[in-house]
Amino acid sequence: MSQLGKTYGEFVVGEKDISPAVTITDAHIILFASLSGDYNPLHIDEEFAKKTPFGTRIAHGLLSVSVMSGYLGQLLNGTAIAFLGARYKFTAPVKIGDTVHAESEVIEKKDKEKYNGGVVKIKLQIKNQKDEVCVEGEATVLVSNTRLW
Amino acid sequence: MSQLGKTYGEFVVGEKDISPAVTITDAHIILFASLSGDYNPLHIDEEFAKKTPFGTRIAHGLLSVSVMSGYLGQLLNGTAIAFLGARYKFTAPVKIGDTVHAESEVIEKKDKEKYNGGVVKIKLQIKNQKDEVCVEGEATVLVSNTRLW
Amino acid sequence: MSQLGKTYGEFVVGEKDISPAVTITDAHIILFASLSGDYNPLHIDEEFAKKTPFGTRIAHGLLSVSVMSGYLGQLLNGTAIAFLGARYKFTAPVKIGDTVHAESEVIEKKDKEKYNGGVVKIKLQIKNQKDEVCVEGEATVLVSNTRLW
Amino acid sequence: MSQLGKTYGEFVVGEKDISPAVTITDAHIILFASLSGDYNPLHIDEEFAKKTPFGTRIAHGLLSVSVMSGYLGQLLNGTAIAFLGARYKFTAPVKIGDTVHAESEVIEKKDKEKYNGGVVKIKLQIKNQKDEVCVEGEATVLVSNTRLW
Repeated sequence: MSQLGKTYGEFVVGEKDISPAVTITDAHIILFASLSGDYNPLHIDEEFAKKTPFGTRIAHGLLSVSVMSGYLGQLLNGTAIAFLGARYKFTAPVKIGDTVHAESEVIEKKDKEKYNGGVVKIKLQIKNQKDEVCVEGEATVLVSNTRLW
Repeated sequence: MSQLGKTYGEFVVGEKDISPAVTITDAHIILFASLSGDYNPLHIDEEFAKKTPFGTRIAHGLLSVSVMSGYLGQLLNGTAIAFLGARYKFTAPVKIGDTVHAESEVIEKKDKEKYNGGVVKIKLQIKNQKDEVCVEGEATVLVSNTRLW
Repeated sequence: MSQLGKTYGEFVVGEKDISPAVTITDAHIILFASLSGDYNPLHIDEEFAKKTPFGTRIAHGLLSVSVMSGYLGQLLNGTAIAFLGARYKFTAPVKIGDTVHAESEVIEKKDKEKYNGGVVKIKLQIKNQKDEVCVEGEATVLVSNTRLW
Repeated sequence: MSQLGKTYGEFVVGEKDISPAVTITDAHIILFASLSGDYNPLHIDEEFAKKTPFGTRIAHGLLSVSVMSGYLGQLLNGTAIAFLGARYKFTAPVKIGDTVHAESEVIEKKDKEKYNGGVVKIKLQIKNQKDEVCVEGEATVLVSNTRLW
């Protein structure tokens, strides 16, 4: 269910936060394959995946990003005027059974009086249960000074 | 499902391509909510969404990216050594019933002899049935000169 | 899928029945989370769940009830005029990999001539593969003497 | 994502609360049918449902309960020692396109020192966009005085 997000004023550069964690399962892979149509054998063919350097099926990279996008949505629920951009890179595979969480850090703020708010840049890392970074990302969002709803 | 992807040598700067299209449905929204845990009322509460500037529920931004990620996966199926990075920004909302497709363009190639391949930069636009750009993106991939499988 | 349900006259107090069984999987958990928005770490975070008295992720209580609700629906398919009420309590956790089935017993009948039928009270137990009772329930239904369709 | 629930001490008899709302879609019906195996034509056969008094397909009664169970889970996230019981009755059909929310009221508290907490009885109503009550329910929960995690 929805929590209230932070207004522009409530974001503080340097502030860090940690998301709840999610164990990645077969079901996540199948649902993401169904949405994306990405049936790469690395994700859905265990016999094939056994013979790759990974040794087993791995999650779609964007699946981990998607799983953690709800966390980012909560941070900005009702206060984001616009998502201006996002970028990420995949630094380690996520395997079925891995438990991932996101760590965020506010790395930049820029006032935009015209919009009664400002631009917030948030660094995101998705880590597994061994604290390995699987995804490095960054989101840039125009955030309001007041709740939009 | 899977087609063979292109090798590094087969990518040509300036080359454009168009993906198959997908009509975004309630089912996409619900499945993406299940993956992301993002139950923002903009996505799942029609009565709420009616009163926003959008006038109706809209898809999660990353849902459109996910729906089109299978297309990118196909382009690079069996030839991508590593996804080095991706970025995107959301430029227009996608509503339930909209039909989206992706248009890609190879915008840069850089040889990497060490990896027997090179880096390919692909521009991606996700457009709706009215040819409006809903997502602008870019993916950077290390691609092999030979098929990896 | 659908079988014909029993008419009011066909229910006999004391009669017992057993449903087909279902093995609870990760997919059930993820789909139920998508419907309910219930992302409690007990259900989706294995690392967290390991440290609880349960030792592993458990199914949402209402998931087991939902999984078995189809069985009850079959018993009353085309003969239930109205579900008047239901109650249940959770007596043991259902873990991923457990196989559950329902056992039903007709415990009460009360004629309602006005509706050309009567009220049937059915006791329901959901048990796992070790015959432990995981859910105790009861449903009260107004059932017709004749098929409604 | 998960919010913290209330401790036993934080529940106040007479206190009311309202959940976020959810628009019930075809996707909810199909996912619930897939979980429950309940393929009653009232839920999945529009041609059949047209000829019934409802005039169109309706949601499984337990689907509405499930959709709102996440809200109840949030209220008690990390503080519920045990769900002792629940009951509900269906008072009006929920149709595809209806937007439902839950209204809760704490109706009883009973201290249980032995458990360092007490029993809380919560009345739940699920209402549609016209403020009609579709489900009447009640949940009885043993709640801790301190957070369990």
